[in-house]
Amino acid sequence: MASDKKKMVEAITAQEVDFAQWYTDICTKAELVEYSSVKGFVVLRPYGYAIWENIQKNLDARFKATGHENVAMPMLMPESLLKKEGELVNGFAPEVAWVTMGGSEPLEERLAVRPTSETLFCDHFSHVLHSYRDLPMLYNQWCSVVRWEKSTRPFLRTREFWWQEGHTIHETAEEAKAETEQQLNCYADFCENDLCIPVIKGRKTDKEKFAGAEATYTIEAMMKDGKALQSGTSHYFGDKFSRAYDVTFTGRDNTLQYPFQTSWGASSRLIGAIIMTHGDDDGLILPPAIAPVQVVIVPVAAHKPGVLEKSRELAAEIGKYARVKLDDSDKQPGWKFAQWEMKGVPIRLEVGPRDIEQGQCVLVRRDTREKQFVKFEDLASAIPAALEALAKDLYDRALKNREARTMSATTMDEIKEKTAKSTGFIKTMWCGDLACEEAMKEQAGLSSRCMPFQQEHLSDVCPVCGKPATKMVVWGIAY
Amino acid sequence: MASDKKKMVEAITAQEVDFAQWYTDICTKAELVEYSSVKGFVVLRPYGYAIWENIQKNLDARFKATGHENVAMPMLMPESLLKKEGELVNGFAPEVAWVTMGGSEPLEERLAVRPTSETLFCDHFSHVLHSYRDLPMLYNQWCSVVRWEKSTRPFLRTREFWWQEGHTIHETAEEAKAETEQQLNCYADFCENDLCIPVIKGRKTDKEKFAGAEATYTIEAMMKDGKALQSGTSHYFGDKFSRAYDVTFTGRDNTLQYPFQTSWGASSRLIGAIIMTHGDDDGLILPPAIAPVQVVIVPVAAHKPGVLEKSRELAAEIGKYARVKLDDSDKQPGWKFAQWEMKGVPIRLEVGPRDIEQGQCVLVRRDTREKQFVKFEDLASAIPAALEALAKDLYDRALKNREARTMSATTMDEIKEKTAKSTGFIKTMWCGDLACEEAMKEQAGLSSRCMPFQQEHLSDVCPVCGKPATKMVVWGIAY
Ligand SMILES: [Zn+2]
Ligand SMILES: [Zn+2]
Repeated sequence: MASDKKKMVEAITAQEVDFAQWYTDICTKAELVEYSSVKGFVVLRPYGYAIWENIQKNLDARFKATGHENVAMPMLMPESLLKKEGELVNGFAPEVAWVTMGGSEPLEERLAVRPTSETLFCDHFSHVLHSYRDLPMLYNQWCSVVRWEKSTRPFLRTREFWWQEGHTIHETAEEAKAETEQQLNCYADFCENDLCIPVIKGRKTDKEKFAGAEATYTIEAMMKDGKALQSGTSHYFGDKFSRAYDVTFTGRDNTLQYPFQTSWGASSRLIGAIIMTHGDDDGLILPPAIAPVQVVIVPVAAHKPGVLEKSRELAAEIGKYARVKLDDSDKQPGWKFAQWEMKGVPIRLEVGPRDIEQGQCVLVRRDTREKQFVKFEDLASAIPAALEALAKDLYDRALKNREARTMSATTMDEIKEKTAKSTGFIKTMWCGDLACEEAMKEQAGLSSRCMPFQQEHLSDVCPVCGKPATKMVVWGIAY
Repeated sequence: MASDKKKMVEAITAQEVDFAQWYTDICTKAELVEYSSVKGFVVLRPYGYAIWENIQKNLDARFKATGHENVAMPMLMPESLLKKEGELVNGFAPEVAWVTMGGSEPLEERLAVRPTSETLFCDHFSHVLHSYRDLPMLYNQWCSVVRWEKSTRPFLRTREFWWQEGHTIHETAEEAKAETEQQLNCYADFCENDLCIPVIKGRKTDKEKFAGAEATYTIEAMMKDGKALQSGTSHYFGDKFSRAYDVTFTGRDNTLQYPFQTSWGASSRLIGAIIMTHGDDDGLILPPAIAPVQVVIVPVAAHKPGVLEKSRELAAEIGKYARVKLDDSDKQPGWKFAQWEMKGVPIRLEVGPRDIEQGQCVLVRRDTREKQFVKFEDLASAIPAALEALAKDLYDRALKNREARTMSATTMDEIKEKTAKSTGFIKTMWCGDLACEEAMKEQAGLSSRCMPFQQEHLSDVCPVCGKPATKMVVWGIAY
């Protein structure tokens, strides 16, 4: 048993040795993705897709609870439509995949495979919006998009990725701004409560904001290695796109007006965030809210009378309150332990003949490996309690890591010194100049993650130029 | 009120006048789709997409109950991969959209936007299949696909459409064949029970089967106008694709073997089937199982004290067992009646001050317009009963239409005569020759829909060539 387990675990690189390799090992060994024959494109395998389905389900329920409706836009858009808004097309043109042939005929106008759908939504809004009575329109789309990235990594950066994109229009700027804030909070709530990932909410600098947006808000998470992962963004467009795409409505005063617009998105890179926030050298550790299997039952000495029967009975019972799987395959228990640890199942139940005689089984937590004997009649309370405790501990551990790796600095020397010592977030004041932001990148390798909503006063001046500074920025190295 | 209603209804062409125009009128007036700026591509609007979501939910639950898992394959595939199986590429090449540029660079090899994903699944299976222990692999994908159709109509034929495609591999031919049959039965069950659409199950002739399949099975429905709509197909491939794509596994006897394969699909054209099977001159009529709103509450004299309060109370109560919407907008009740009839909501409740005094409201069925007074305390039984009765009547009406429009014939003259008189299904014997099938098209304008599993013996000879015939075919005019 021990050697089986060892054999499997050896297949993964340790985090300490090579975090990046550990990450890609997990992606394939936990059977989340497989590389496809199309360069830069991956296959989401059943286990990876099941995690994505749970993410979708939980986010979608939140969106619908606040009145959003799902729609489907075309996958392709004419180049002329994309070009109507200059900043947007400039932002995306270098990474667009172009369809130039339909069947055996060259197209009169080439079509972009959607890299994002602002233009299509604007075009649609211009057809269906008439009166202020039609507002707000609160739309969302679940789909995949294509961006021709140069180098790719599963979930973090692939030429095709899966996401949702919300697109809303409103009668007033205030309502649109409130929507932007509501959806950012929705993402933060989902990350913290369902994914057990603490996030920093803030606003992007102009350099880092979405092409064409008036303001971009973000939630930033820290991975185990100290690097940052942007985990969801929410954009306020004002009436800029409405004007570019001629989206108008008749207002309460009977004049023609432009609606105010937002968009917001979260993607399958959240799976990358889950892996790198919680995983360890034995594999994934999944937050219970999105784990495809929350409890795996492994029979021990399954050939002994009563073991399989009892395991099946337990599976049926636990299925009433948790997502449970009975692994009754003909593999050895040790192999199964290692496999389900690799796949990050939060709780394992070991059911063997001697324990059955005593009316109990062994409950093992994936994160702590803590074992406890639980009487069968107590499982219905012990399992939910263990899932809840594990979720809380995942969050607390991630928060502790972030706190340990978050520094602040007031001079460039201090920034360089601290950045050289450890990877993490560095908080500094900032004057607001692009030149200073670029200097941080050149001199310290840091990009601005956001201007947190929760500001602190660290000093009076910008550490780069020495000019007065009132904004605090969180800097980091981003995935 | 009456004129309001009339005004809205006048916007739709009557079925008798022009069935095709009636159909496209419904698609836009019921706010299911909107044409996009991309030729041949449509937008699924919230109401249309909500129907599709319910179809997805109900089919997906059936797929999962029989052990299928969802995955996501790339949206693009290299031309060389598509070309590995000759029949498949010949079948789809004329209607493929080609990506030839990534960013500003021309691609070394052009990529097809998936028209269907057999090749991608085969490629993936070849990477992940090792042993007979890995079989069966029962995969499904929800996505959109692109086919460069010349002429398009919402839901029935668009350049992009939404569907699911199941792809499975099995150790033996028998298991694969059983899968093909199981999934066809799954589609039939869904159509008949959830969509209230009777279907004929059968096998496609070689002329009509899927490119590369050994056998294609189909469910065929009849629309109100007598035309046929293929509503779901299930294909058996044998080991043909496995051999073309080098998908192998080590068998129980330790030799290298090719798995046996199936695929099966149903698409957003099912929404077209719903419209044309059940709709009438006032709009859609939706089967309760997939209706986004099953019960709409319309307050009458909403300004009178207690009316809105009672309506809200009822909505909260009904929400426990049905999908309910309270229309408390400031439109006139007559306008609302017409609008929700257009949208096909199965049941309307009218709640007015006089009825409230008597502790009752008016329940109106969308299909029959039958009105009944129902005491508030009886709604919890009256609403489910009315939904069930409506569903049964929809099915019975559709079956009656099909039976009235199904003819049989034994000579070519009889076929021509009957086809000239009315549009519908014609059953005849068939010798099995392609030439006779083509003659049916040329001389009578009919295509073979299927060879039904439930065969009848109508005569001993083929009506075209007079040679012996043992197979009965159902012919029709297909959407
Ligand atoms: Zn500065
Ligand atoms: Zn013949």
